[in-house]
Amino acid sequence: MAFKTDIEIAREAKKKPIMEIGSKLGIPSEHLLPYGHDKAKVSQEFIKSLSGKKDGKLILVTAINPTPAGEGKTTTTVGLGDGLNRIGKKAVICIREASLGPNFGMKGGAAGGGYAQVVPMEEMNLHFTGDFHAITSAHNLLSAMIDNHIYWGNSLDIDERRVAWRRVMDMNDRALRDIVVSLGGVANGFPRQTGFDITVASEVMAILCLSNDLEDLQKRLGDIVVAYTRDKKPVYCRDIKADGAMTVLLKDAMQPNLVQTLENNPAFVHGGPFANIAHGCNSVIATKTALKLGEYVVTEAGFGADLGAEKFFDIKCRKAGLKPSAAVIVATVRAMKMNGGVAKADLGTENVDAVKKGCPNLGRHIANVKSFGVPVVVAINHFYSDTDAEVAAVKAYVAEQGAEAILCKHWANGSAGIEDLAHKVVQLAESGAANFAPLYPDDMPLFQKLETIAKRIYHADEVIADKSIRDQLKAWEAAGYGNLPICVAKTQYSFTTDPSVRGAPTGHSVPVREVRLSAGAGFIVAICGEIMTMPGLPKVPSAEVIRLNDAGHVEGLF
Amino acid sequence: MAFKTDIEIAREAKKKPIMEIGSKLGIPSEHLLPYGHDKAKVSQEFIKSLSGKKDGKLILVTAINPTPAGEGKTTTTVGLGDGLNRIGKKAVICIREASLGPNFGMKGGAAGGGYAQVVPMEEMNLHFTGDFHAITSAHNLLSAMIDNHIYWGNSLDIDERRVAWRRVMDMNDRALRDIVVSLGGVANGFPRQTGFDITVASEVMAILCLSNDLEDLQKRLGDIVVAYTRDKKPVYCRDIKADGAMTVLLKDAMQPNLVQTLENNPAFVHGGPFANIAHGCNSVIATKTALKLGEYVVTEAGFGADLGAEKFFDIKCRKAGLKPSAAVIVATVRAMKMNGGVAKADLGTENVDAVKKGCPNLGRHIANVKSFGVPVVVAINHFYSDTDAEVAAVKAYVAEQGAEAILCKHWANGSAGIEDLAHKVVQLAESGAANFAPLYPDDMPLFQKLETIAKRIYHADEVIADKSIRDQLKAWEAAGYGNLPICVAKTQYSFTTDPSVRGAPTGHSVPVREVRLSAGAGFIVAICGEIMTMPGLPKVPSAEVIRLNDAGHVEGLF
Repeated sequence: MAFKTDIEIAREAKKKPIMEIGSKLGIPSEHLLPYGHDKAKVSQEFIKSLSGKKDGKLILVTAINPTPAGEGKTTTTVGLGDGLNRIGKKAVICIREASLGPNFGMKGGAAGGGYAQVVPMEEMNLHFTGDFHAITSAHNLLSAMIDNHIYWGNSLDIDERRVAWRRVMDMNDRALRDIVVSLGGVANGFPRQTGFDITVASEVMAILCLSNDLEDLQKRLGDIVVAYTRDKKPVYCRDIKADGAMTVLLKDAMQPNLVQTLENNPAFVHGGPFANIAHGCNSVIATKTALKLGEYVVTEAGFGADLGAEKFFDIKCRKAGLKPSAAVIVATVRAMKMNGGVAKADLGTENVDAVKKGCPNLGRHIANVKSFGVPVVVAINHFYSDTDAEVAAVKAYVAEQGAEAILCKHWANGSAGIEDLAHKVVQLAESGAANFAPLYPDDMPLFQKLETIAKRIYHADEVIADKSIRDQLKAWEAAGYGNLPICVAKTQYSFTTDPSVRGAPTGHSVPVREVRLSAGAGFIVAICGEIMTMPGLPKVPSAEVIRLNDAGHVEGLF
Repeated sequence: MAFKTDIEIAREAKKKPIMEIGSKLGIPSEHLLPYGHDKAKVSQEFIKSLSGKKDGKLILVTAINPTPAGEGKTTTTVGLGDGLNRIGKKAVICIREASLGPNFGMKGGAAGGGYAQVVPMEEMNLHFTGDFHAITSAHNLLSAMIDNHIYWGNSLDIDERRVAWRRVMDMNDRALRDIVVSLGGVANGFPRQTGFDITVASEVMAILCLSNDLEDLQKRLGDIVVAYTRDKKPVYCRDIKADGAMTVLLKDAMQPNLVQTLENNPAFVHGGPFANIAHGCNSVIATKTALKLGEYVVTEAGFGADLGAEKFFDIKCRKAGLKPSAAVIVATVRAMKMNGGVAKADLGTENVDAVKKGCPNLGRHIANVKSFGVPVVVAINHFYSDTDAEVAAVKAYVAEQGAEAILCKHWANGSAGIEDLAHKVVQLAESGAANFAPLYPDDMPLFQKLETIAKRIYHADEVIADKSIRDQLKAWEAAGYGNLPICVAKTQYSFTTDPSVRGAPTGHSVPVREVRLSAGAGFIVAICGEIMTMPGLPKVPSAEVIRLNDAGHVEGLF
């Protein structure tokens, strides 16, 4: 069978003018700032005018641990949004923006797939409306102002060895991970060791995603701890006087971007932290705006539920006061097979035993998500090679876990293929079964929070951390940051810190390599295992084949 | 007298929808991609459809060496465009985009001033349509791919000591001038010394500004020499296979941006190389498009005529086959006084002798511009403190040089204040007096070209360069680059390389610190004196007071 590619389908989309999509949601055109004819930002004034309106119901789409087989979490998020609209619910989709840099490493991008996509896909995978560039600029302005402060006399007494603020770039560039700056003599400042992270890992990205409005944004930017003095007192962004200019740089980026699905339903695409090295959720302002405009808001959290959903619940929902009504866990027969030990090349052959053997990865995610008090349904994202027996095996396994698994064919059929899931989600949400609570209380000691995540979500035996890391956490507790949640940076491929360990392992250890305070975002990052906050490019980067073809279309990006 | 500030005037502008401005030029709305309601990019297809149409006349606006008094070159460019429209000519303005980084150093920005401005001013000084961010991304993608190539086996045999391609950021960040990358062990590559330039100095910026279309852009990107092998053979961007992906990143940035003046006349704002560290002209594609759409095109070149106009003639016009019909040299009474030795604080006091004493700076620029075969008129940009006697002194001096100086009051009165200049420009252009030729032929040896600029334009006695620099130039000649023009990087404040030397000095030397091959852009950069390709922030950067006020307006940027 010959299938159209995602990009072929996207290019055939019958897009409506974005003003028309906005008017579906009751957004007047003067409150939509167009970027081309198919993208627009929603004005601050309009968003402010919504306060007091009743909220719709929030649905989280999460997934099993990703495998090379592909699970289709964004595809299912988009499909479910279309499906809810199809069955007569006013639904709004909220997803994250794509990061530019990684698209030049591995072929990727895309915003959904098949007949469940948001468009314009090409632009969403390139500069889109410039939000990430604004974040990069704001972040690096602060970096420049810190070194400039030291250069011109260092009146704040910053200890050059304790500058905590790095620089960022939206690029996979391993050469920038660890660098020495300010070489070349007196005119260039005081040499010191530092580095670049990828923009999605920036605290500015997290702040933008967690702020309620521009005032909150500026306050949080001011709260960033950029360095410490020689007697270890924190130096804040507002001491450097960068918070105002950073807010100016971010004023447009702070406004949610409206686009549409292939079925012309509205989707907000805003913010883009990765769930492995950051908190992995779209912006609070987009989610809250969508909740005022729709009966249902379907949002996703990055990677598997161990990372994305845990952070969605423990960071985003905790901090923004959100109460999810239901969660969808996306799984595929193919991924279950890979978890059951089948190689990618053999996924086309029926193997019910392997499916059964791989199901415990899904089972653990179901139990984990339920432990937050949120009712769960499993979406089996259908592939043509799936056999009835394999699908039945997954359904049976999920039923044993006290949940239901529903076969979804939105990739091939759009909203018509996902009606059953949409009805089930409505039933769960309307049932009032949800009783959301975060995993741990604010006042639990920081290291104990990390142990709680590791033991209850990852099913590890222990967290391993040097004394220096434990001391650092204690110092932050003494400085008043003990109430913050933990944002674990860890491989997405496993419950453990070893990307090769599939399934539902137990008895492992979680080694903490480094901890970073994000006082403005309001969490503490614990970097576990080998995960990098600046990725590298592969041996043959996809950039080598990306080009404009004669029709002016982008080739090689998808 | 209380004057409104530029930004107050800009905020009172009665802007017309950008589609209406485009239709004045005959651009159908489907060929205008909106960025908000007041900015748009012109489509490739529309630009291609213009080929074969007759060109309008090209007018260059240049200036004396800048002084802290401010000369108003952009203000006069905008005013002249409005003035030509006022007297019944269909005129289009072509200026450069503002660089983000420097705005956070010194209060600045602005696109013209008083009643001769283009709008929206705030956005033009922030992210605008994202062109510079796209240039930064494309440049740094190539950087990442070079280090990645070395990391994965270096099959091109790049000599890590001879990587010529640096990184860029649109930020004043002296700490990044000279850095060591790839520290931290095996996973991060091979440590080597390199650095960042500001984005306006990127060869990608120059290429974007000098390319005729996307095909030409990709070809030139491929031509970039990024490094040399151990046996000193050049390694090109296309060997790294980055040219296709860079073109994709630049596809929207390559399209000219349309905005409007306060009087609702069309202005293209596109490209933004600085004239001190780069070639300093707006894009060829914008200029050529404007020439097809208007009877007159008014464009500017950066800083004084020694830098901007020389490069406009010897690089942009030579390479793009443009034939300017006339040139306007902007001067002010105040700047003449500063050249005559008056301190900034004393500029308000009449001092005819100082004006006369300062005029030779203007006189040399007049003679220089005439030497390119382009007829000259001087615009005296009027300030309220100018006295009649002072203005008369400038006029008399200019008359002695065989040119006319016209008093212009566009800052205060818009197009009504600049009609005389507009009529004079039309007279010069219609006279057919122009007989443009570049300063030196393509086949002159590279060092001799540099000497020609230094002696004939700067009136220096000699160019000083180490043997290694002369050898490098000879090596490039042997490699087939001897036909390229020279792009001098030098202080804008003086004919010499010493920024404190005003007037019309002679007998000085021009020391060359470094030469860089820009094989894609098609010139060789000679860095003379102390000029930096990455600026620093001042002791009290303007970023410290930039903020959003309660009305949501940007304060402190202008």
